[in-house]
Amino acid sequence: MQTTVGEFLFTRLRQAGVTEVIGMPGDFNLNLLEQLEDMDGIRFVGACNELNAAYAADGYARRRGIGALMTTYGVGELSALCGIAGANSEHLPVFSIGGAPPLFATQNRFRLHHSLADGDFDNMLLSMAPFTVTAVHIDSTNAVEEIDRALHLCLRKQRPVHIQIPSDVSHLKIEAPDTPFDVRMPASDPERLAAALAHVQEKLASAKRPAILTDMDADRHDLIEGLRVLADRAGIPYAQLPTAKALLDENGPLFLGTYAGEASFADVRERIESADFLITTSPRFIESNSGNFTAQLPFESVVDIRNHRVTVGPDYYEGVVGSELLALLVDTFPEHSTTDTAADMPTAVSPQQEPGNASDSLTHARLWPRMAEFLRPDDVVIAEAGTSNIGLSSQRLPSNTAYVASNIWGAIGYTLPALFGSMLAAPERRHLLFIGDGSFQLTAQELSSILRHDQRPIIVLIDNAGYTIERWILGMDRTYNDVAAWDYGRLPQIFDAETTMRSYHASTHEELDDALAHIESSEYGAFLVLQLDPKDAPAGLKAFGPSVADFDYGPTGPRNP
Amino acid sequence: MQTTVGEFLFTRLRQAGVTEVIGMPGDFNLNLLEQLEDMDGIRFVGACNELNAAYAADGYARRRGIGALMTTYGVGELSALCGIAGANSEHLPVFSIGGAPPLFATQNRFRLHHSLADGDFDNMLLSMAPFTVTAVHIDSTNAVEEIDRALHLCLRKQRPVHIQIPSDVSHLKIEAPDTPFDVRMPASDPERLAAALAHVQEKLASAKRPAILTDMDADRHDLIEGLRVLADRAGIPYAQLPTAKALLDENGPLFLGTYAGEASFADVRERIESADFLITTSPRFIESNSGNFTAQLPFESVVDIRNHRVTVGPDYYEGVVGSELLALLVDTFPEHSTTDTAADMPTAVSPQQEPGNASDSLTHARLWPRMAEFLRPDDVVIAEAGTSNIGLSSQRLPSNTAYVASNIWGAIGYTLPALFGSMLAAPERRHLLFIGDGSFQLTAQELSSILRHDQRPIIVLIDNAGYTIERWILGMDRTYNDVAAWDYGRLPQIFDAETTMRSYHASTHEELDDALAHIESSEYGAFLVLQLDPKDAPAGLKAFGPSVADFDYGPTGPRNP
Repeated sequence: MQTTVGEFLFTRLRQAGVTEVIGMPGDFNLNLLEQLEDMDGIRFVGACNELNAAYAADGYARRRGIGALMTTYGVGELSALCGIAGANSEHLPVFSIGGAPPLFATQNRFRLHHSLADGDFDNMLLSMAPFTVTAVHIDSTNAVEEIDRALHLCLRKQRPVHIQIPSDVSHLKIEAPDTPFDVRMPASDPERLAAALAHVQEKLASAKRPAILTDMDADRHDLIEGLRVLADRAGIPYAQLPTAKALLDENGPLFLGTYAGEASFADVRERIESADFLITTSPRFIESNSGNFTAQLPFESVVDIRNHRVTVGPDYYEGVVGSELLALLVDTFPEHSTTDTAADMPTAVSPQQEPGNASDSLTHARLWPRMAEFLRPDDVVIAEAGTSNIGLSSQRLPSNTAYVASNIWGAIGYTLPALFGSMLAAPERRHLLFIGDGSFQLTAQELSSILRHDQRPIIVLIDNAGYTIERWILGMDRTYNDVAAWDYGRLPQIFDAETTMRSYHASTHEELDDALAHIESSEYGAFLVLQLDPKDAPAGLKAFGPSVADFDYGPTGPRNP
Repeated sequence: MQTTVGEFLFTRLRQAGVTEVIGMPGDFNLNLLEQLEDMDGIRFVGACNELNAAYAADGYARRRGIGALMTTYGVGELSALCGIAGANSEHLPVFSIGGAPPLFATQNRFRLHHSLADGDFDNMLLSMAPFTVTAVHIDSTNAVEEIDRALHLCLRKQRPVHIQIPSDVSHLKIEAPDTPFDVRMPASDPERLAAALAHVQEKLASAKRPAILTDMDADRHDLIEGLRVLADRAGIPYAQLPTAKALLDENGPLFLGTYAGEASFADVRERIESADFLITTSPRFIESNSGNFTAQLPFESVVDIRNHRVTVGPDYYEGVVGSELLALLVDTFPEHSTTDTAADMPTAVSPQQEPGNASDSLTHARLWPRMAEFLRPDDVVIAEAGTSNIGLSSQRLPSNTAYVASNIWGAIGYTLPALFGSMLAAPERRHLLFIGDGSFQLTAQELSSILRHDQRPIIVLIDNAGYTIERWILGMDRTYNDVAAWDYGRLPQIFDAETTMRSYHASTHEELDDALAHIESSEYGAFLVLQLDPKDAPAGLKAFGPSVADFDYGPTGPRNP
């Protein structure tokens, strides 16, 4: 059928599940925005800046399975790059679109605004390439092929891609296929799938201490449901990496706890490291999810299930779709066959509640168990890098919690825009954001987008005068870890005079309880500002900080006094 | 002498004129911040995020001759990249420092936070490379050489450089030279300098219609004073590109006006294009400073004076320092020898004041002449891309105005952080910022840094509900050009409860006059919010917008109805 380049692009994105393209206007993409405005079932949503838009698209992708980002050439693309790289690091399919200068101008190497004015128009893609699966420039000869290719790569690799569309190309007529976009993964090679299944079945049949250990790719490659059913039917206990928090139910009888090398509880560690059958989902061990690289998986016993490969001990089965293998494996167990295997399993423990009085000042030790108590099944819980993520990591979360954190990329400021994107993607779910003041300041303006769209999240802001995670690593009393003291609670009104979001303050546990009671019963959004001591931190951070300093600065480097 | 890598770096920066390193803390640079805190004569200044820090370092470099930026690995470096690229586009020496993971970890390809967790640690530098003169990784074997090389390149090329310092390297002891850093440009080749001078002198002696046409590199390569004296002594009239606004006095008798191809006043255009001796300073013609590429310089008559090359018509003189040539050329004229040459020159005109009543709503037509009237000699005037820069471009500014705009890079949001950096670099000068609401929202949090340091600028914010420059290009009534309505005037109090900055509002010319009278007599900073109609724009923008649409979207592309 005949269409235009821009309409083809947005049709494809809509077929892949995108209903919101998040971004910023600029003269090289207004043409694309015109086309977006005129289409049904997909719309443009403006953010306050491009980095925020990229974080929002990442948050959107986590709920929707794909996110889309729209920026303008150079200034927009590069501003978004940290967010795009973050989507790569966190394995998220963000489809990034950059409006580019007109083709005649770039091919003739004109000097243009939003460039280095030296006739070079390759530098932007060069800069995006290391952080995307593909970064390509579209014209009317390759639009259909490159757009479809990029979209397939984005979904199949669960990573960002970037395409540039020249401003004089979007409205050109092209011939495009009538068939809708096929979002499915290419099917397994039948022989390899059968061989892998047989090998896994044989291994599992003889196993006495099987276990499952999830990492984030279990979510990215659609393995969660298969693993859940397998654990249930075969009675296999499961643990999670910190980077896979709450993907499988933390309240089920088979839940072991969180595994992170020597930073695990001893029984969890023992159970995982001595398993004679251990399903993993392409775990990536970094400092913070491995107890500083002390994780030791039992290599011969590992069955690693990936996107398009299964590894059983030393044997590779290429071209095997993980979710297909799991579905077949599950079918070999009758429903509710057994949970006996779990008889000797350790019981996952929640941290003990710290004792204290209602009038006591807030402490992290008591705050996070209290917040966990406030959560409900099916919440989307977004935790900023630092005290929030560390504080919540040690709490057991309700069933079906979607837990969002930038665990590997760890960009502070990520979560507020991610909240905006996540609520665009899943407006029906209750959203809670936990964020510190230092992080909040990086991307604070995106609160205005949240209010503009009448989103009603619960935002909990830790107001403790600076970057507490950095203080515990180095510079406990240094001014470089201080941030300006804002009157956070008044921001919602500044950003939207008619907002229904209500602000709350608490500096004691009693005030916190009161505020949470109000928030619980309110239909409106909440902005809850908590005063905490700048040096107080969750126990996990107090242990983590000095170990980071040891790792980062070496034996002769600086330390906190 | 024996020192450490970090101390050597900061000593060098201090010798080059840096007293403030602007940036953000992160675990891979806290070690460097420790060293900075302990040094005299140079300090760390925190910004709210890394892009803002990069813009601030750019603003600092414009006043101080060099700026320095400090970020952490990956998340920080990439967040700053748009600002670093902007410094490249605008020819500004920004020395960018990224704290990197420890050497043993990167060389052994550990999976780390702030990376893609794939063992690749080359990707950040690959991404920075297209936008920096050099992007290098430091270790203890190359620290002295690479730091000195990068600093020389930064200053001599007037472009950004980026160095990564591993977190376990900063405190290593190294042997470093005792001699201070030499900031001077390598001297000219004597024969080439003499030959160039003779050629230029001969050409000038026979010239009947000489002229000077400045572009921004006249500032970057220290040519302004030489050009000023030459114009004065030899009586040579001068014009400027829009990208060189107010570098030479706009009020002198020899000032022709602004040259921008067919977008110039006819007499200015004629004078420049028919000159028989035309000094230029490496002009870069982009769409907006060339009347859409209609500039036509008289090639045979052009004497182009650059950093380290002089071109006379078709002849190149490599290795000739522009400022040295100018100094010698000036010496051949006695002081105040003549101004006769200017007898036939056109008179630079200021736009006429629009008539109107005091109670009329604010219009751009009347606003910008009024604002120009408010300016004083020696002000630093910072104008955001869009209505502010276009509005002020047509005004004649007082002598010694330092005019700051991102003319080529054109990143919206640049100016507020640039104001912060500029005031750190030149606290003794009055600063005024003109910015629109859409732009302000990108980087708004940096107002808090301005207040935190008790800087007292005059900020004029055009509150007109969106991206007016985009409306005039495309989407006049489209929602994608709208921004959220903030209560801007209350922001200073939110960011700093004890600020002395006072907010003012005006929606009529009378209210504007009242506010300016108050501001004029106040010792405190001012935040002046002006209400303007979303569709109103300076005349220059009304003409520019549709021509951009023609250029960008081609004959079959979209247009405003």
